[in-house]
Amino acid sequence: MSYDDEEMVVTPWEVRGKVDYDRLIEKFGTERITDKLKEKIYEAAGERHILLERDLVYSHRDLDWLLKEHKKGNKFILYTGRGPSGHTHIGHLVPWRFTKWLQERFDTRLYFQMTDDEKFLFNPELELEDVYQYTYENTLDLLALGFEPEDTYIIDDIKHIDLLYKIAVRVAKKVTFSTARAVYGFDNSMNIGGIWYPAMQAVPAFLHSEIVGEKTPCLIPCAIDQDPYWRVTRDVAEGLGYYKPASIQNKFVPGLGEGGKMSASDPMSAVFTTDTPKMAKKKVMNAFTGGRATAKEQRELGANPYICPVFKYYKFLFMPDDEDLSDIEKRCTGGDLLCGECKQILAPMMMEFLEKHQAAREEVKDRVHEFSAARLRDEMKR
Amino acid sequence: MSYDDEEMVVTPWEVRGKVDYDRLIEKFGTERITDKLKEKIYEAAGERHILLERDLVYSHRDLDWLLKEHKKGNKFILYTGRGPSGHTHIGHLVPWRFTKWLQERFDTRLYFQMTDDEKFLFNPELELEDVYQYTYENTLDLLALGFEPEDTYIIDDIKHIDLLYKIAVRVAKKVTFSTARAVYGFDNSMNIGGIWYPAMQAVPAFLHSEIVGEKTPCLIPCAIDQDPYWRVTRDVAEGLGYYKPASIQNKFVPGLGEGGKMSASDPMSAVFTTDTPKMAKKKVMNAFTGGRATAKEQRELGANPYICPVFKYYKFLFMPDDEDLSDIEKRCTGGDLLCGECKQILAPMMMEFLEKHQAAREEVKDRVHEFSAARLRDEMKR
Repeated sequence: MSYDDEEMVVTPWEVRGKVDYDRLIEKFGTERITDKLKEKIYEAAGERHILLERDLVYSHRDLDWLLKEHKKGNKFILYTGRGPSGHTHIGHLVPWRFTKWLQERFDTRLYFQMTDDEKFLFNPELELEDVYQYTYENTLDLLALGFEPEDTYIIDDIKHIDLLYKIAVRVAKKVTFSTARAVYGFDNSMNIGGIWYPAMQAVPAFLHSEIVGEKTPCLIPCAIDQDPYWRVTRDVAEGLGYYKPASIQNKFVPGLGEGGKMSASDPMSAVFTTDTPKMAKKKVMNAFTGGRATAKEQRELGANPYICPVFKYYKFLFMPDDEDLSDIEKRCTGGDLLCGECKQILAPMMMEFLEKHQAAREEVKDRVHEFSAARLRDEMKR
Repeated sequence: MSYDDEEMVVTPWEVRGKVDYDRLIEKFGTERITDKLKEKIYEAAGERHILLERDLVYSHRDLDWLLKEHKKGNKFILYTGRGPSGHTHIGHLVPWRFTKWLQERFDTRLYFQMTDDEKFLFNPELELEDVYQYTYENTLDLLALGFEPEDTYIIDDIKHIDLLYKIAVRVAKKVTFSTARAVYGFDNSMNIGGIWYPAMQAVPAFLHSEIVGEKTPCLIPCAIDQDPYWRVTRDVAEGLGYYKPASIQNKFVPGLGEGGKMSASDPMSAVFTTDTPKMAKKKVMNAFTGGRATAKEQRELGANPYICPVFKYYKFLFMPDDEDLSDIEKRCTGGDLLCGECKQILAPMMMEFLEKHQAAREEVKDRVHEFSAARLRDEMKR
């Protein structure tokens, strides 16, 4: 079966087959971010953003409402997270950078959940020590992007369970196994911790409301595959006295192989933040592209940048300037730029990015504790 | 349908119909406490106990093994608990007193779990505030029995979740929904917190092993209806590096109505520790008995103490002396003692017991914190 024929499967735990993002909007029942809505975001944010411009961030729930509340002076908080089941790859950083932009432009607090319990419960091969280690490593990657502790709270589910459990049982009481089965596709072989877990993922959307003692709007930037979690979170929110969280959803940043999400389980399909620059270069040079079978054919007919991961890396990470991007696009489709040459442009960009990122990772190593959600214990008591 | 015809249902959440304790041993797969085993317990404990003598404590798992380990110098810990869904009734105190005897005779540590999360999750009508309040009230009743803080740790699930969650997710990962459904009778309408909860009830059996860093035998004194929880706990124990917990199980102390467990949902069926002595007397005087339809008939044929809750209160609580009990039994079966007269004997005993218990409850009010499992946080860190 070829990649294109494979049936699309998109759940919070599995992405398989060719992802049809339009169909996901229908399937999940989210809304497309229209040009009109983009303008509203830019107006509120005070500037444009290429991930919106270039439609990597493309879907939402209740964003209109959230912006209206913001305009009225009703501040929202941001909530996103990471499942620490492996090293961070470059693809993860793209939406995190977008989250940072939102945080800065809207001057909001960010709750970032490290779902160590989830990854332990859903992965037979992972021990607690493994997910703790990945939590630490992933945290370094997040912080290397330049977040500041004042408004950034990293929640490690197991370590900070005392802040979460009371809200989680209130959520859990409102979600039946029937619902969980329908929404997440659980079957009878699922372990009882995995069945419980969706309650935990709902909590950070409500945590701030508990802390300040009044309901606070919440915006969740996330990849589209996580939407089922928020659907259930939204269903229970009002019954618990909270606002339904809004969300703003991105497509996956592609892997270096043919199609699909960057996969932590196939090391060559992704550049990890812990790869040496040399290894990253090797991965780039081995990447799948939209090129033709022969150089001669490509010179004559041009290549296809729209299915090419190399081009997507320019688009979503390395070429914020529209003219630069347009130039590459034209040379590619026109047959002037062969894939090997094109990769030779990307490789040093990737290497330089990695070097800087890794230096930043080193620098934040002794500051991790400053971002801990443990600080919320004092706020909770007040 | 009469009470006798009603089908027996015994689960951790529901006891209905006439309880056949022999059948429960078969159904749950536990073992009867034989006379030979009783002698071994007495030998190790250094004295006899009326609840064993009189077969209220009648069933077990692995008690032989536990006593052998004890003899070898391998100390065990005790674990029991309470679901704080209502006020304590006199029936609850009976097994707690037995637990205290075990603690004293075997010089062991007791972990006592207040399952506030369970009661919140399983009872649609209970809010968190309700289960917190009952936790406090029930704790007073426990402590009024004279436990000492040195070896007694009261775990409130929600308050002390930081001590429990890590072990709970390790348990939960090993229990599928299929198993939970088969053992606990969960269906698809069960909420995902209720499905998760059995993992939480397993934790205190393993907590001490985590604290001291080596596996420690555990004995669970409990009512027979809780056995399904320990069956699953036992199934996962060895895979997690712990001993299977042993258990010693009691029958229910009967209510004052016809048959069945004392029920917190029918206030007249039980004497609560918070009842006034006057109210308690009223309840005793209204109790169901094993008496005949008329006084005349009873004088001629005698009454049946073996189905009589009044007689059971003598047997399990108020008449530790065998001669006293035997005297009542003979006068009852011989027709010399009418039920009204007999209740007039029980009523002042109950009132006096309550008065003393309520005074003891008052005295422990400012000592509750001394028993908190919060103290374990320091032990955990070491």
